[in-house]
Amino acid sequence: MPVALDYPKNISPVAGVRLSSIPAGIRTTQGDDVVLVELAEGSRVAASLTQNLFCAAPVIVTKEHLTSVSPRYLLINAGNANAGNGDLGLRDARACCRALAELVNIPEQAVLPFSTGVIGKALPVEKITAVLPKLLRRLGEDRWLEAARAIMTTDTVPKAVTRIIETDGGSVCITGIAKGAGMICPNMATMLGFIATDAAVDQIELERLHRQGVDQSFNRITVDGDTSTNDACLLLTTGKGARLSPVASQWLEFKQALHDVYQWLAQAIIRDAEGASKFVTIIVTGGQSQLECNTVARTIAHSPLVKTALYASDANWGRILAAVGRAGVTLTIDKVSIAINGCGIVARGQPHPDYSEKAGLEAMSKAEIEINVDLGSGSAEYTLWTSDLSHDYVSINADYRT
Amino acid sequence: MPVALDYPKNISPVAGVRLSSIPAGIRTTQGDDVVLVELAEGSRVAASLTQNLFCAAPVIVTKEHLTSVSPRYLLINAGNANAGNGDLGLRDARACCRALAELVNIPEQAVLPFSTGVIGKALPVEKITAVLPKLLRRLGEDRWLEAARAIMTTDTVPKAVTRIIETDGGSVCITGIAKGAGMICPNMATMLGFIATDAAVDQIELERLHRQGVDQSFNRITVDGDTSTNDACLLLTTGKGARLSPVASQWLEFKQALHDVYQWLAQAIIRDAEGASKFVTIIVTGGQSQLECNTVARTIAHSPLVKTALYASDANWGRILAAVGRAGVTLTIDKVSIAINGCGIVARGQPHPDYSEKAGLEAMSKAEIEINVDLGSGSAEYTLWTSDLSHDYVSINADYRT
Repeated sequence: MPVALDYPKNISPVAGVRLSSIPAGIRTTQGDDVVLVELAEGSRVAASLTQNLFCAAPVIVTKEHLTSVSPRYLLINAGNANAGNGDLGLRDARACCRALAELVNIPEQAVLPFSTGVIGKALPVEKITAVLPKLLRRLGEDRWLEAARAIMTTDTVPKAVTRIIETDGGSVCITGIAKGAGMICPNMATMLGFIATDAAVDQIELERLHRQGVDQSFNRITVDGDTSTNDACLLLTTGKGARLSPVASQWLEFKQALHDVYQWLAQAIIRDAEGASKFVTIIVTGGQSQLECNTVARTIAHSPLVKTALYASDANWGRILAAVGRAGVTLTIDKVSIAINGCGIVARGQPHPDYSEKAGLEAMSKAEIEINVDLGSGSAEYTLWTSDLSHDYVSINADYRT
Repeated sequence: MPVALDYPKNISPVAGVRLSSIPAGIRTTQGDDVVLVELAEGSRVAASLTQNLFCAAPVIVTKEHLTSVSPRYLLINAGNANAGNGDLGLRDARACCRALAELVNIPEQAVLPFSTGVIGKALPVEKITAVLPKLLRRLGEDRWLEAARAIMTTDTVPKAVTRIIETDGGSVCITGIAKGAGMICPNMATMLGFIATDAAVDQIELERLHRQGVDQSFNRITVDGDTSTNDACLLLTTGKGARLSPVASQWLEFKQALHDVYQWLAQAIIRDAEGASKFVTIIVTGGQSQLECNTVARTIAHSPLVKTALYASDANWGRILAAVGRAGVTLTIDKVSIAINGCGIVARGQPHPDYSEKAGLEAMSKAEIEINVDLGSGSAEYTLWTSDLSHDYVSINADYRT
């Protein structure tokens, strides 16, 4: 059961982007599992791809293609990650791109491939190439939600969101979709996120917006500390809408709306994390550097003991304290304070004088938990979102392939 | 159910060490929960204590006392960690030492306190001081197994082992006990390990032997990556047996026997890890440095996805590959090879030509799993022992306090 995450509604089309999806029999569960995204000519893209050294074949091919021509199509499949397949994986990913390129008479490099699913199974290339003509025929501007549903693996809810802002040059739309529920600890990107806007933004600004967006959202979520081999997040602009640049009066509003879309999608992944019963925000303040706060936040977030205590709604705050203490950063215990949902636990290294077991249990019983750690030695801070570790997480991941 | 770990037998006394244990009502489960260890005058000790910055009060007091006089008594309780209790915790730990010191008329500093159990509850000092006279009356040389049982928390089997070697100066005995099943990722020590010998060894050699012992054993195990606030491991010598030094002809044999005791105890903790159904040895070779191999081994060992695949006996080796790829070390994928229980999975970055799903499943179905990763770029190596992540782990840690 996702934590406060509704089925998406009011998803708006982005001028210049058409989508389609179809069942090709790649994923074992029913439903669409191949998605085609068409971008109007002249579209721009900023991409973040996984930093995992064992990166998947489609990630390698996408990287190559991005350096060559402007992308016109994204070809995405669920059910098979095409990772760990060596040279065969690269040949397969290229074969899919080439088949599509020939049908629409564009260079192969204008197609970006993306895959998600099981690692180490050969990609069923024929199943994908067989559905390409139908995918092309079905392309439409209002198919974002179907696309979000088709790229799901262990997700239980499709993740899609829209923001529209009014500018002097007319309205501008931002729509994004993402998938991911496990093997989530993005490093520069997360497992398939696509955010599109019609705002006409220069390439250099697009890259900057994307880097900031990913850094404030997908790079701040973790389910299990496991960075995927297939992580990919793209910001696309078709340029069909109003022109925007840092000197435009609506620039800040646009940046904020874009930031909202990134963060909503990233948080949606945590709300729908495998087996999640809690949505947990960890805020570490008072550090000497952001890295220090980041390290403390991740040590808490990745502790199986903290995660199982969260699952049990058990105010076993000693586990948070132990995680802070082993984080490997230099800190003065006498300056550290910790609170859960506003309930003070540790005050400057000592047990908080007002703490009671009753207050602790009440704080931990909520579905939305905020853990505040003040290191008391500087002004840097870091926020990270994570989930708990439940029986369902073990079941989902022990049974995933079977 | 521990993985191939029998109830200890043939545990020999160590000349100069007497022990006793008693139920004091500190732990919620029945049975002895306070242990007293008496060391003959002139005994020596080498200690490793937790590196967790939020270290427990007894660890702080033990550190202080070790710098002062030769220890005569270890006072150990289970059921309460006396950690996270601020200044009160320090006062309580000292009060217990003082009460014992007054009864036997020795300096307070000759008592070393150790605690294990729940973090953040005040230590019931009166319950401990009340049983001290009885503990003193019951002291005996043959109570090692009772002591091993009394310090258990979520352990299911007491951990004790003996090695005896013959030297020119007579026989020498090494007996060790340990406890630990969760919050196990020792950093210089593990949650309560006590190893005693009657061999007369100089302090400088004792420290060296202990450092090597811990480095090759307790520092190479991990259940959940959570370093305890109370980790403590001691090597004690009473000097009542044969004199041994590096020039003695039995020195190597003695070192090996001591090494066996450390490693047996450390592996026993993993075999009895919370919810464990597998005993997993991760061997990373071919690294440019030991640190590099260590990092790769720990990334695999701490991956919830690898751990749940091990639990499911699922040959989902893509998760191992993904863990290697995100470990944060510089490696050339084309040189990396991976095998599970001798079944080749990845050969120099490519899928192993002989791999079959049947062979993979057979390798993963064993209770004892060896994961071999060859980085192919150097001669450094590192070995780490870990367990799987099961439903029982979640149950044990979601229910621990309740």
